[in-house]
Amino acid sequence: MSRAVAIAGVGYTPFTRRSGRSVLDQATEACAAAIDDAGIARHDVDGAASFMVLDDSVVSIAVGTALALPELRFALDVQLGGQAPCVLLQHAAAAVAEGHAEAVVVYRALNGRSGVRVGGGQFPGPGAAYRYPIGYGAYMMYVAMWAQRFLYETGQSSKDLAEVALAQRWYAQRNERAVLREPLDLDTYLAAPIVVDPYRMYDCTIEVDGSCAVLVTTLERARDMRHPPAVVASAAYRSAPRAGLDIGDHQLVDDFTRNYTHRLRDELFGRAGVTVGDVDFAEIYDCFTSTVLMGLEGLGFCGRGEAGAFVRSGATALDGELPVNTHGGLLAEGYLHGMNTLTEAVLQVQGRGGARQAPRHEVGVVTSGALVDGSAMVLTADR
Amino acid sequence: MSRAVAIAGVGYTPFTRRSGRSVLDQATEACAAAIDDAGIARHDVDGAASFMVLDDSVVSIAVGTALALPELRFALDVQLGGQAPCVLLQHAAAAVAEGHAEAVVVYRALNGRSGVRVGGGQFPGPGAAYRYPIGYGAYMMYVAMWAQRFLYETGQSSKDLAEVALAQRWYAQRNERAVLREPLDLDTYLAAPIVVDPYRMYDCTIEVDGSCAVLVTTLERARDMRHPPAVVASAAYRSAPRAGLDIGDHQLVDDFTRNYTHRLRDELFGRAGVTVGDVDFAEIYDCFTSTVLMGLEGLGFCGRGEAGAFVRSGATALDGELPVNTHGGLLAEGYLHGMNTLTEAVLQVQGRGGARQAPRHEVGVVTSGALVDGSAMVLTADR
Repeated sequence: MSRAVAIAGVGYTPFTRRSGRSVLDQATEACAAAIDDAGIARHDVDGAASFMVLDDSVVSIAVGTALALPELRFALDVQLGGQAPCVLLQHAAAAVAEGHAEAVVVYRALNGRSGVRVGGGQFPGPGAAYRYPIGYGAYMMYVAMWAQRFLYETGQSSKDLAEVALAQRWYAQRNERAVLREPLDLDTYLAAPIVVDPYRMYDCTIEVDGSCAVLVTTLERARDMRHPPAVVASAAYRSAPRAGLDIGDHQLVDDFTRNYTHRLRDELFGRAGVTVGDVDFAEIYDCFTSTVLMGLEGLGFCGRGEAGAFVRSGATALDGELPVNTHGGLLAEGYLHGMNTLTEAVLQVQGRGGARQAPRHEVGVVTSGALVDGSAMVLTADR
Repeated sequence: MSRAVAIAGVGYTPFTRRSGRSVLDQATEACAAAIDDAGIARHDVDGAASFMVLDDSVVSIAVGTALALPELRFALDVQLGGQAPCVLLQHAAAAVAEGHAEAVVVYRALNGRSGVRVGGGQFPGPGAAYRYPIGYGAYMMYVAMWAQRFLYETGQSSKDLAEVALAQRWYAQRNERAVLREPLDLDTYLAAPIVVDPYRMYDCTIEVDGSCAVLVTTLERARDMRHPPAVVASAAYRSAPRAGLDIGDHQLVDDFTRNYTHRLRDELFGRAGVTVGDVDFAEIYDCFTSTVLMGLEGLGFCGRGEAGAFVRSGATALDGELPVNTHGGLLAEGYLHGMNTLTEAVLQVQGRGGARQAPRHEVGVVTSGALVDGSAMVLTADR
């Protein structure tokens, strides 16, 4: 048995700076919304999966209980961050393909601003003893080091980072869900304080409270549901080439000019039966602007060192050759650790993007994760 | 793509009461042994999966690095206990079936006696505040409560528990890996102190340090390897019907006379295309003796309340109709949280059981987990 798999629905809570609600409450709302959006009955949902960082969320059985789902045949909870959405989708899709589950809800929920904040979080690990005494202790700092080397080695600069922030803010103005919707120009970008060199304020994602979810089922069932299916054409994951001490250890890699995207690209497109030229739009994980540049280069949408110019040319705009981060990205919609990157891709493939709908939306690519390890997925229309 | 999947090799460290070694070192040895046992090259292994309780183990990328595996295409680390082995196999097998990985090593490693002990472990959770002040704080106590109700409701007694301990010790004498190999008779059993009513000392698993692992790949590749393939004919998982406060919360279920085995039985056998009567041997998770009785009844090998008599009749002995826990079980071989239950099933299907080899070993069933949630698998010879 190997059944074609699709995403049939998406669900969201509002994204806020202070929800005033429990994480479970928000997870339940988003999952219920995804199930209702698909038009499936709750008693037909037999799987759930999610991820958490620093114990900031609730496990799948809790959401299953809150929604009065039947006992789960597939329940997967992993301790991962932004690498997780596409790889959880991969596992859920494999389970559905193989008949281990019929309908799986995959969600991310957190009080990422009012509760446990990754931005200021303490990541324990053997390396902490070396880093913390010198004040090198926040996740943002680690990514910034990588970004500096990436810019230096590829001959790019903070001007190239700025292009990403500006382009995505344009989309955010067309997304009622986005937390940051004011127009952004280059002067404003450059006038903002540097948080961690090379990142200015506008290079950084905005932490929020909230939840979003998708409903994964067979393509056959999805065809009878409310919206056109978003077909899971392929998914791929790559671990770090080797284990580091912990999240702040950059000794994992030899090449800071690329991230995992270039290592999984061939498998990702090959298994989907598409080429990079077939891709109509891309939703690229963007905890920081540099990740988008690395993703564009890594996936092969442009050459090494050319991503900034690619964005500057308008290629990633709505009328460009490859609309990118059409929700405004994590930078502007909010930091749901890439789960909302995935939900946006579903909306785009389904043609539900509203004022920010990509004109061509037959083939979309999504990535999850910023640096050494991560996952990605190709979604297509039902062709 | 849906490829048939098999287990091609197993690997072990010695099981000891004080390893004097790191968990990583033991995990690496067992995984290397499983890979070598299959006869595959390390550079062909592209997946790893494991589980841990109370942070007692090491994540898969660490083992991948120690073994110099290539970067992983499948890496799964979950925070689960005895429920995990068969469900990890299910996920790994789905990944291989769908082409997301070619060869996955699945392992459990811990210093379960000299390091982090589950037996005396503190399980944090909202329920702890209610239980700990009255001295109700160890995992063993929770299972004992369930066992008491099971025995009462099904008209069985500690004499029935004894049958399991005695039957399994017979096997342990034929297993050089077992930690407890002395003969055990009923008088000795009954003379042992009650640890937590209804459990005497011999009803409880023995905590050990060690690691074991399996190598999962396609059936097609397995056929070219060193040993006959153990085909993964089916696997199934069931969550709790609803979420409890934590591991010590028994309010999850209404019926304490059954565990998850009776809820997944039909799916398990149905998907494997076998009936309960086709099963040649069973390896049933046994952190405590009562779990074996519940598993025999739950899977349908005997009727409700008849498991003790079933074991007493000799049915689970090597010359009986259904050899059970042929390695001596967790009770005697050691508490690797059921990963060694799975490896034993592989050895049996492959005909490598030595002095404890079941005469018929075409179809074997394995379970993972004691109570409300758990998983199971059917392994068959290559037919």
